[in-house]
Amino acid sequence: MTTPKIEFNLTDSRKQKPSEENLVFGRHFTDHMFIADYVKGTGWQNHRIVPYAPISLDPAAIVFHYGQTVFEGLKAYRAKDDSIRLFRPEENFKRLNRSLDRLCMPQVDEEKAIEGLLELLKVEEEWVPKLEGNSLYIRPFVIATEAFLGVAPATTYQFYIILSPVGSYYEEGIHPVKILVENEFVRAVKGGTGGAKTAGNYASALKAQETATAQGYSQVMWLDGVERKYVEEVGSMNIFFKIDGEVITPAVNGSILEGITRKSIIELLAHWGTPVTERKISMEELAAAHASGKLEEVFGTGTAAVISPVGELNWNGKIMTVNEGKTGALSKKLYDTLTKIQLGDEEDALQWVTELTPSFVKIG
Amino acid sequence: MTTPKIEFNLTDSRKQKPSEENLVFGRHFTDHMFIADYVKGTGWQNHRIVPYAPISLDPAAIVFHYGQTVFEGLKAYRAKDDSIRLFRPEENFKRLNRSLDRLCMPQVDEEKAIEGLLELLKVEEEWVPKLEGNSLYIRPFVIATEAFLGVAPATTYQFYIILSPVGSYYEEGIHPVKILVENEFVRAVKGGTGGAKTAGNYASALKAQETATAQGYSQVMWLDGVERKYVEEVGSMNIFFKIDGEVITPAVNGSILEGITRKSIIELLAHWGTPVTERKISMEELAAAHASGKLEEVFGTGTAAVISPVGELNWNGKIMTVNEGKTGALSKKLYDTLTKIQLGDEEDALQWVTELTPSFVKIG
Repeated sequence: MTTPKIEFNLTDSRKQKPSEENLVFGRHFTDHMFIADYVKGTGWQNHRIVPYAPISLDPAAIVFHYGQTVFEGLKAYRAKDDSIRLFRPEENFKRLNRSLDRLCMPQVDEEKAIEGLLELLKVEEEWVPKLEGNSLYIRPFVIATEAFLGVAPATTYQFYIILSPVGSYYEEGIHPVKILVENEFVRAVKGGTGGAKTAGNYASALKAQETATAQGYSQVMWLDGVERKYVEEVGSMNIFFKIDGEVITPAVNGSILEGITRKSIIELLAHWGTPVTERKISMEELAAAHASGKLEEVFGTGTAAVISPVGELNWNGKIMTVNEGKTGALSKKLYDTLTKIQLGDEEDALQWVTELTPSFVKIG
Repeated sequence: MTTPKIEFNLTDSRKQKPSEENLVFGRHFTDHMFIADYVKGTGWQNHRIVPYAPISLDPAAIVFHYGQTVFEGLKAYRAKDDSIRLFRPEENFKRLNRSLDRLCMPQVDEEKAIEGLLELLKVEEEWVPKLEGNSLYIRPFVIATEAFLGVAPATTYQFYIILSPVGSYYEEGIHPVKILVENEFVRAVKGGTGGAKTAGNYASALKAQETATAQGYSQVMWLDGVERKYVEEVGSMNIFFKIDGEVITPAVNGSILEGITRKSIIELLAHWGTPVTERKISMEELAAAHASGKLEEVFGTGTAAVISPVGELNWNGKIMTVNEGKTGALSKKLYDTLTKIQLGDEEDALQWVTELTPSFVKIG
């Protein structure tokens, strides 16, 4: 298959960039976006970089009614030498394809998608923030565009990549959050779409988050939908526990999302000689570990925060304070190491970084 | 609260209507649509009827990423006297509000929504098909329009009603379908969004439907996500069983959709003096009833088909033929009664019909 070339239609009127101080997540967008169109029988076509502009869809477009849409999230970082760096972008596009498959949507060509992203980043290079801790958030997404009210996979789709300059997740350095264990609502269940990065999972989660916020908690901890006892995720992050020296994370089970930060931490800890145990872990076990003083650290992992230490868990009104509400040594070490690798301040021993400028070659 | 008035912006260039023979479901749309806008703090505003036209949204609109969208489906029927009739529209807008609540979206004013629908139908009266069995499908839906990549309820929404002339579900009269019992995939689980009419539930269901279609089955039968033994729904219909004279349907449990046809059948059978039992029903019980010759009828219920008799169930390769693959007497009687009430050919004893022409008064 020959790779179709990308067409460029660039704007002369660049937007004024927002101040890099106090950048709010997901509010500002750059001057251009990447688009490709899919038509069943013909495949992906019209790969192009065009001015950022509204999407125009028939009111009967399947994405509005039956939710055929998946997305990804990753970041571009500006290093001290002004090079622009991506963290494992190939993993995002692999997962995009797994999500697309679950939703009966057509796969994208991963190499072509990364090429499109790199070309878009070249066009938008000035948008990659310079202030330490800031980055350019990258949102690839695919939507079903066909105008048809029958419940069936669409025959036409669009693949977009949009870019948004964002501030640091931690305004005043990494700090622990308080988490409410959710007993009423369920994020996902085996056999559902929890393993896919698709819209419905996030819509479903809003109600629980509303309650948690009202009670002063920053996120919910999801339990499994079958027995309501095993830990799944925290908010939209994966979760890790350090119990009596052992690092444990819920095993991939068909309902949790396979986070790329999760995967990287597992690989990094293995590289350090301290393998992570992937298995089921129940709230009872956590409570017992807490009671015996063995629950040493809890932290969430995701693209936005990298590492989000948990200082408190509320399980049915039982408050479990973790590590005296402070960031644990392992959480801190993982956060520092990952962010330094992302920014080029530490050796990329596991070859995770794709560097954009000046040579576009894979380094590390 | 004063009810804002509806503004009209009507087109002079009406589309050519499709032939009423072989109308495909959900492919053709009328000349106009109803829209209202929501802004947090101000509420619903700008209620208007405008030409049917594309929706233009920022690529970061929340509906594309986090699936905040709910919908409804009902039909307008043309009676022999040329009046236009709606079946329990108030139930659809009540359910719309329940769905909106689950998805952290703002409620609509039900009366105002019905008024908008009736005004739209007056404008589009000529689009209500005349051929027996055809009808005008009505699709109200609400989408989150705010351009924001944070996972949080949107602060802006749009409410649409679009209309589509559709053919009879049964081209050659009511006939039984073959159903594959689904063991791998799950539609919904308690604590999730199964009880809401929201996009994610339908996206999630496509994969199982793909397998069923490939094996020659028209729909899947969903089992519960916890024990994987109790019947939930069939495709996107509710399901009823007649076992040894008793009519049984799965009880509302937080994961099945509360169908309006389901509700109507329960009420109609109660009116006839044969109450429906709403309870859990397992595949083991169905298989035992089948083995002893007591599984007399199985039928799905929904807006599209009204009643869809089931002639065969395939459970892990075990084939259960129901009523020799023919439409049962009760299925037929319910289908005939409901369609006659909808069309004004039978007394509307339970006051279900809203008549549009000439007086817009509630009849029956």
